[in-house]
Amino acid sequence: MIKSALSLSDLKQKFLNDKPQILQDFFTFLRFESIATDPNYKPQVVACKTWLAENLSRLGLHVETWETSNAPTLFATDTRAGEGKPTLLLYNHYDVQPVDPLSLWTSPPFDPQIRNGEIYARGAVDNKGQCFYTLYALKTLIEHYGHLPVNLKYIIEGEEESGSSGLFKLIYQNKEKLKADHLLIIDSGFEKKDQPAITLGARGIMSFTLTLTGSKFDLHSGTHGGIAYNPNRALVELLASLRDEKGRVNIPHFYDDVIEVSESERGEIDFEFSESEYNEMFQMKPIGMEKGRNPLEAAWLRPTIEINGISGGYAGTGFKTVIPAKASAKLSCRLVPNQDPQKIGNLICNALKNRVPQGISVEVDTHPGGGPGFRTNPHSKIAKIMSQAYMDVFQKPCKKILLGGSIPISADLMKISGAEMILVGLGLPDDQIHAPNEHFGIDRLEKGFLSIAHMIELLAKAEKY
Amino acid sequence: MIKSALSLSDLKQKFLNDKPQILQDFFTFLRFESIATDPNYKPQVVACKTWLAENLSRLGLHVETWETSNAPTLFATDTRAGEGKPTLLLYNHYDVQPVDPLSLWTSPPFDPQIRNGEIYARGAVDNKGQCFYTLYALKTLIEHYGHLPVNLKYIIEGEEESGSSGLFKLIYQNKEKLKADHLLIIDSGFEKKDQPAITLGARGIMSFTLTLTGSKFDLHSGTHGGIAYNPNRALVELLASLRDEKGRVNIPHFYDDVIEVSESERGEIDFEFSESEYNEMFQMKPIGMEKGRNPLEAAWLRPTIEINGISGGYAGTGFKTVIPAKASAKLSCRLVPNQDPQKIGNLICNALKNRVPQGISVEVDTHPGGGPGFRTNPHSKIAKIMSQAYMDVFQKPCKKILLGGSIPISADLMKISGAEMILVGLGLPDDQIHAPNEHFGIDRLEKGFLSIAHMIELLAKAEKY
Repeated sequence: MIKSALSLSDLKQKFLNDKPQILQDFFTFLRFESIATDPNYKPQVVACKTWLAENLSRLGLHVETWETSNAPTLFATDTRAGEGKPTLLLYNHYDVQPVDPLSLWTSPPFDPQIRNGEIYARGAVDNKGQCFYTLYALKTLIEHYGHLPVNLKYIIEGEEESGSSGLFKLIYQNKEKLKADHLLIIDSGFEKKDQPAITLGARGIMSFTLTLTGSKFDLHSGTHGGIAYNPNRALVELLASLRDEKGRVNIPHFYDDVIEVSESERGEIDFEFSESEYNEMFQMKPIGMEKGRNPLEAAWLRPTIEINGISGGYAGTGFKTVIPAKASAKLSCRLVPNQDPQKIGNLICNALKNRVPQGISVEVDTHPGGGPGFRTNPHSKIAKIMSQAYMDVFQKPCKKILLGGSIPISADLMKISGAEMILVGLGLPDDQIHAPNEHFGIDRLEKGFLSIAHMIELLAKAEKY
Repeated sequence: MIKSALSLSDLKQKFLNDKPQILQDFFTFLRFESIATDPNYKPQVVACKTWLAENLSRLGLHVETWETSNAPTLFATDTRAGEGKPTLLLYNHYDVQPVDPLSLWTSPPFDPQIRNGEIYARGAVDNKGQCFYTLYALKTLIEHYGHLPVNLKYIIEGEEESGSSGLFKLIYQNKEKLKADHLLIIDSGFEKKDQPAITLGARGIMSFTLTLTGSKFDLHSGTHGGIAYNPNRALVELLASLRDEKGRVNIPHFYDDVIEVSESERGEIDFEFSESEYNEMFQMKPIGMEKGRNPLEAAWLRPTIEINGISGGYAGTGFKTVIPAKASAKLSCRLVPNQDPQKIGNLICNALKNRVPQGISVEVDTHPGGGPGFRTNPHSKIAKIMSQAYMDVFQKPCKKILLGGSIPISADLMKISGAEMILVGLGLPDDQIHAPNEHFGIDRLEKGFLSIAHMIELLAKAEKY
């Protein structure tokens, strides 16, 4: 017996009925301290993966655990829709960013709490929130139809926040299993609340740790101040040299492979930006751009280099008159399509080594993972269907945007799967992802669920597109 | 009955006999975690002060505890020698530097251990080692004579490592009590092992914390990279601007009050410096000088600005794609005589505020304490007597040097006491003071004891100088 499709109002009713259980399950997911980048959290990462795998199995999905040297990836499939139906590949990740500085969290990062309809927890948005509403959409459809109305391949990664190095190998090893028609990376967002948008590209990323060493051990800054070349001084001089007066990245050949985007390509994308809204949201003016670029151009179409962390000497309470033996920084480049992360890494490494004063030793340690920037077809079937789903749920036309961030695996996953891809999600710029007090609205948990479930319904009868 | 003077060989024998007890007592002193700069260590600081006070009382000294808003100063006196004898004012401190990075200590910083005749512990030299041999010299003389053969005033401070702000007030409040003929600050050292030297001046210090704020909260470096002016970027640019291409401090009017030292003044001081020895000792070349200055000139006669600590964003294990809301640094200037710390602080503060990009807010928080640089009379009686004592103990002529570091209270203490002053001590450049694995030789503990006891003996019959 073929069941009738679930309407949006059926789905809304379902969410309303199940809300207490939904929140309880979501909170369980959020409580796992799945900081995969830090080896100390390994047991929590594994526990989180196991919880997910059990949930997927319970839905009747075939679940594989793809091991890596660090946090495994889950690969779940539901092929019960059969050959006549399209195959949808979904991507989420269950690892989260570190939580420092812990003191700035209003409530503990792994003890989810609701304030004004927002759920506060590390991963509330990125990416457990987006993963959870997706899971709940699958669950609802499977419970209704007995199985999904399309064929599903579902990747839930464990190393996205640390560069996806394991998954990069895995997708090449499991090439055949990943063939699909459509690919949704559910890890992005809208520029503005309730203004739906799909994302048609992202910047790439390469990151590295830079360490400068001056002396064998820390030195007294009185005895040695003026004699020693303080590694902190060498570090700030070196890092300050990374930009020129125009705010451009000051590394020879850094921009060589950057292709300026054509007017017609620009026309596909919505570059609307409100400086006053940005200012209000972040209490900060958008002033970091290269001269002559507007903010969204800078974030979407231009590469950048950012100092994500810097440390050297004593930065604790009080004061210490030390010249440290070492000083270091963690940096990342956001790259645009056609820039090769490895090539850029080499350019930077060479420039840094050339610029450091003789007598200071320099070490550049490129982090594993990373990946290139990319853009996708704005006219694909999945772009149209997802836009329709968002439009139906939000009752507003859906915009087309780009992502300044990176989902390193996207470009390779698109290639290997052979699928047409878009990036979707319900994150918002002020969700404080990667920062203290990350939060996600219960309303968005519902709309995410509605959008994914509705999109699958639309895709199942996709002939009309 | 007048006891005969203690000869150097008597004193040596005494040290040999008492060695086990000496080490036991010294280790007790070292075990107090007296990091006064960090409020968390308050109970340990107080315990250390109490232990010292009890030891001084037991010698028959009159002991006063001078309270401050943080760690108290001890003031002990022995006036039993009487009016015909000179009054000697001694200075030590019992607070120690913080211990970070803890992971680089071979043995725990507050669990003293002996390796190859060196005692490893925080404070082993600076200043508990120097304080302890002084105490033991006083004890030995008092036990021999019944009281000291000179009048003694003894300050043991608790806030030297955090700028002596409490003591600055105290010495003005207790002006009358501090009158003395001779003043020894026992907190410095030699340039080379077994090559005795007295120190005839030190640089001043002023220090501050610089904090830059970009946004309300930490931002995702993908979304905001290229739009936001990363506070880490603003920080490195600002700090890099503090030096010009000649290595000079690039703050307007910074050098205005610096008086070049005359040839005859230079002639008093031993500027011998071996680049190869320095290189070997620290595995570092002396390359941080202003152009045209040699290393000891740079460390002794020229001011500097040093970045003692820098932090911003995520610097832990792994990696985090963050643009931090704030970035900060701790800096200090070493100053030469005639430079006013407060005036210099204002110059720097203004320069920093002028240079920071509009949209980044800057806060400069000057640390309490600090003090001016100074030089003392190379021909004073105490300079001659101490040189003689060192010469007798080390069997080598005693050199005259300067200190690149600072003992903030010195200049004011000299003024208030009306005494002639020198700086002495048995520290060595590679003792790793202020750094992990600070250490002091048992041989130096003995020679320090011998030198102080012998100096007091010489001073007691000082008419011949």
